Amino acid sequence: MKKLLAEFFGTFWLVFGGCGSAIFAAGIPNVGIGFAGVALAFGLTVLTMAYAVGHISGGHFNPAVSFGLWAGGRFPAKDLVTYILAQTIGAIVAGSALYFIASGNSDFFIDNTQAGAFASNGYGAFSPNGYSLETAFATEFLLTLFFLLIILGATDKFANGKFAGVAIGLGLTLIHLISIPITNTSVNPARSTSQALIAMGEPLTQLWMFWTAPILGAIAAGFIYKTLLQKKETA
Amino acid sequence: MKKLLAEFFGTFWLVFGGCGSAIFAAGIPNVGIGFAGVALAFGLTVLTMAYAVGHISGGHFNPAVSFGLWAGGRFPAKDLVTYILAQTIGAIVAGSALYFIASGNSDFFIDNTQAGAFASNGYGAFSPNGYSLETAFATEFLLTLFFLLIILGATDKFANGKFAGVAIGLGLTLIHLISIPITNTSVNPARSTSQALIAMGEPLTQLWMFWTAPILGAIAAGFIYKTLLQKKETA
Amino acid sequence: MKKLLAEFFGTFWLVFGGCGSAIFAAGIPNVGIGFAGVALAFGLTVLTMAYAVGHISGGHFNPAVSFGLWAGGRFPAKDLVTYILAQTIGAIVAGSALYFIASGNSDFFIDNTQAGAFASNGYGAFSPNGYSLETAFATEFLLTLFFLLIILGATDKFANGKFAGVAIGLGLTLIHLISIPITNTSVNPARSTSQALIAMGEPLTQLWMFWTAPILGAIAAGFIYKTLLQKKETA
Amino acid sequence: MKKLLAEFFGTFWLVFGGCGSAIFAAGIPNVGIGFAGVALAFGLTVLTMAYAVGHISGGHFNPAVSFGLWAGGRFPAKDLVTYILAQTIGAIVAGSALYFIASGNSDFFIDNTQAGAFASNGYGAFSPNGYSLETAFATEFLLTLFFLLIILGATDKFANGKFAGVAIGLGLTLIHLISIPITNTSVNPARSTSQALIAMGEPLTQLWMFWTAPILGAIAAGFIYKTLLQKKETA
Repeated sequence: MKKLLAEFFGTFWLVFGGCGSAIFAAGIPNVGIGFAGVALAFGLTVLTMAYAVGHISGGHFNPAVSFGLWAGGRFPAKDLVTYILAQTIGAIVAGSALYFIASGNSDFFIDNTQAGAFASNGYGAFSPNGYSLETAFATEFLLTLFFLLIILGATDKFANGKFAGVAIGLGLTLIHLISIPITNTSVNPARSTSQALIAMGEPLTQLWMFWTAPILGAIAAGFIYKTLLQKKETA
Repeated sequence: MKKLLAEFFGTFWLVFGGCGSAIFAAGIPNVGIGFAGVALAFGLTVLTMAYAVGHISGGHFNPAVSFGLWAGGRFPAKDLVTYILAQTIGAIVAGSALYFIASGNSDFFIDNTQAGAFASNGYGAFSPNGYSLETAFATEFLLTLFFLLIILGATDKFANGKFAGVAIGLGLTLIHLISIPITNTSVNPARSTSQALIAMGEPLTQLWMFWTAPILGAIAAGFIYKTLLQKKETA
Repeated sequence: MKKLLAEFFGTFWLVFGGCGSAIFAAGIPNVGIGFAGVALAFGLTVLTMAYAVGHISGGHFNPAVSFGLWAGGRFPAKDLVTYILAQTIGAIVAGSALYFIASGNSDFFIDNTQAGAFASNGYGAFSPNGYSLETAFATEFLLTLFFLLIILGATDKFANGKFAGVAIGLGLTLIHLISIPITNTSVNPARSTSQALIAMGEPLTQLWMFWTAPILGAIAAGFIYKTLLQKKETA
Repeated sequence: MKKLLAEFFGTFWLVFGGCGSAIFAAGIPNVGIGFAGVALAFGLTVLTMAYAVGHISGGHFNPAVSFGLWAGGRFPAKDLVTYILAQTIGAIVAGSALYFIASGNSDFFIDNTQAGAFASNGYGAFSPNGYSLETAFATEFLLTLFFLLIILGATDKFANGKFAGVAIGLGLTLIHLISIPITNTSVNPARSTSQALIAMGEPLTQLWMFWTAPILGAIAAGFIYKTLLQKKETA
């Protein structure tokens, strides 16, 4: 139960901090934090929670990460459903908190005919810079694949594991530096769900892609790491 | 006494560096550091002082942090008053130093009819982007709650404690990336006091909120961490 | 073989993340990540992969680094060719992936009569700010020399080696903060090759310089570190 | 001798990377790195060299740091002159290298009637934002004082010393985030000298201040740390 609460709080923080920085602070003229600030915010949500509650739950905060760790042989299949539920509920509660706070500004409204409405993810006409479904899918697949290679490698028993929280958190920053213009960056189905449920409309219709591509990429990474990269145990 | 001096110097640095970067460098056209630079500066004041004097005083530099550590069972009630006094005096002295230096620029003046005058915190008409009292209160409460979850978690005896200074400092950066447009970001009553005493007017009238919301959020975090997340000792 | 795969994936990530952030996200008006965001992205590709697969292959991801470690007495000559092949192939595959994704945006095209086409490196008329061949060569030579001094020093047995991934990754960020306007920053022949093969034209004609200057700088660093700086063993 | 070479290379890198990023990349329209990028560059020069050659020379790279460590009882008086010479020569050679590379751009010239010519430091009419001599002096004094408190604290035998390079490097980033608009930020007499000797004119006339204020601030920090903060040895 402590594990599920840790995943709930961690995923709440990922969505509240990452999507919140995008909603509240990215686009302000002259002094706004821009895409680089949002990228830093997403990464720091994971870095901070990895050191805060990583020792409790392992610090996934993302259904694709749980799937990838399972595929890599690091996480038991029987815990997948409860972890993913805790993550998704944490993300949805965070989305509601963001909606409440955003509503405190009299200029606030959500235009779900535009890309990136309420920090939602999208492709085609709902990609911030108009990238097609195929290229958006490939991007989410590839970036989640590498995100999991970083996670599996940095937490390997032969690695310099105390730095895993730094490498994984800043890895998520890097992923956002690359791909906000392409899909508004998901690599995390819970994060995408939390925003689509509030934006509704086309962002909700496109949500299937942000479950499919990240989870497939993560599972691919699990098999690649386990079969091609992982050192043999010699005990 | 060394502990109180460490808190004095640490909180001086937090206000001098964090508010100073906002006052001197945030809004310069084209090359100014913007909200992201100010967010980085606040976080680095805590990161640097955590490694510099954390081994002396524990490195709170913030009355809400002292309250939250007390609620989490990590800090004795009898030291609360002296720590908070040392922090508040350090912050006020830093505010005076900033005022002296800012006055060295002939264009300098404080317009306390505007949001964010002299890096002050505010809500309603004094929120940088016009967020209401309720949403500003909720933001300060929630962000301080998570700040303390990070602090309590990262310094837990079961955690990877040597990285606590990195996680806590960059956690404060993250908090600023989210919320400068909402309240100009406090989560620290001493920091708010130091600026309100110089800006005067409405920022001073609103100061009650920046003591209440952060301290309540921090106390809530102490109880949540202790009762719901903390692993049992099994010695 | 695991070592060569680690170099392949690591160099793929360096090019995909570093050049990708430049191609997709640098120049977007108002919220784009700019040169500083690209600098951070390049550094984080190395930081993340150093902690992920550094324990497998040593984490070079760059032919100049392999040459410099050889010159410094840390890497056997017999592995140079296979490492450099794995790196160069990884970089070229990443370039193709970037080309595929970039083509998903209907506005995409490569104008190889301009500096920095498809994140290519260049000098003279193909330097982003018009720096001459001699000064571009000196810049690539000097920056790779210092990059290798950082690598050789931070991984020295007398150094605080667990932080090497942080120092080396952020060292590459620093190198980009200095020199994107000069050569679009290479210090890595595999990275330059991957972009020149897609941009073609003058960027390909200038590619010789981005093999010569970094490798000479790296070899110079190997000899300087070994003969002038390295502490004697006293076992 | 290895120590002096390490100080030479480290201070070369501080000036080449920090001032170089300012000269080449800060002011480019839209994508330039701005003051925040320059602040990051200065900090990363120290972070990278601290992990690279800190185990050789202690990693001062700054005459004020050597004075402050002496005042704090951590560095012998007899080594002050040779360290400061090695640092100053390294800085001046780096200034010459920057001048050579900058000359490779046909638009380059130095207008030493303007503040910040060739990354020089200044006060009054030569302060980037026009701060008076007294406030510029106070800023350099205070920031160097805190820089040394960070250095003395983070390398204290009771501190978490392996993170000292991170705390000290990012401390220099923080100092630049605050004060580039005030003095173009020195806190390092060797860095100021290297630019003043090339800019000549008023920047050279004002150089006395950038030796006096940082060294006095550093010495003050040495005495404050030793007498007020440092824990007693109890062996």
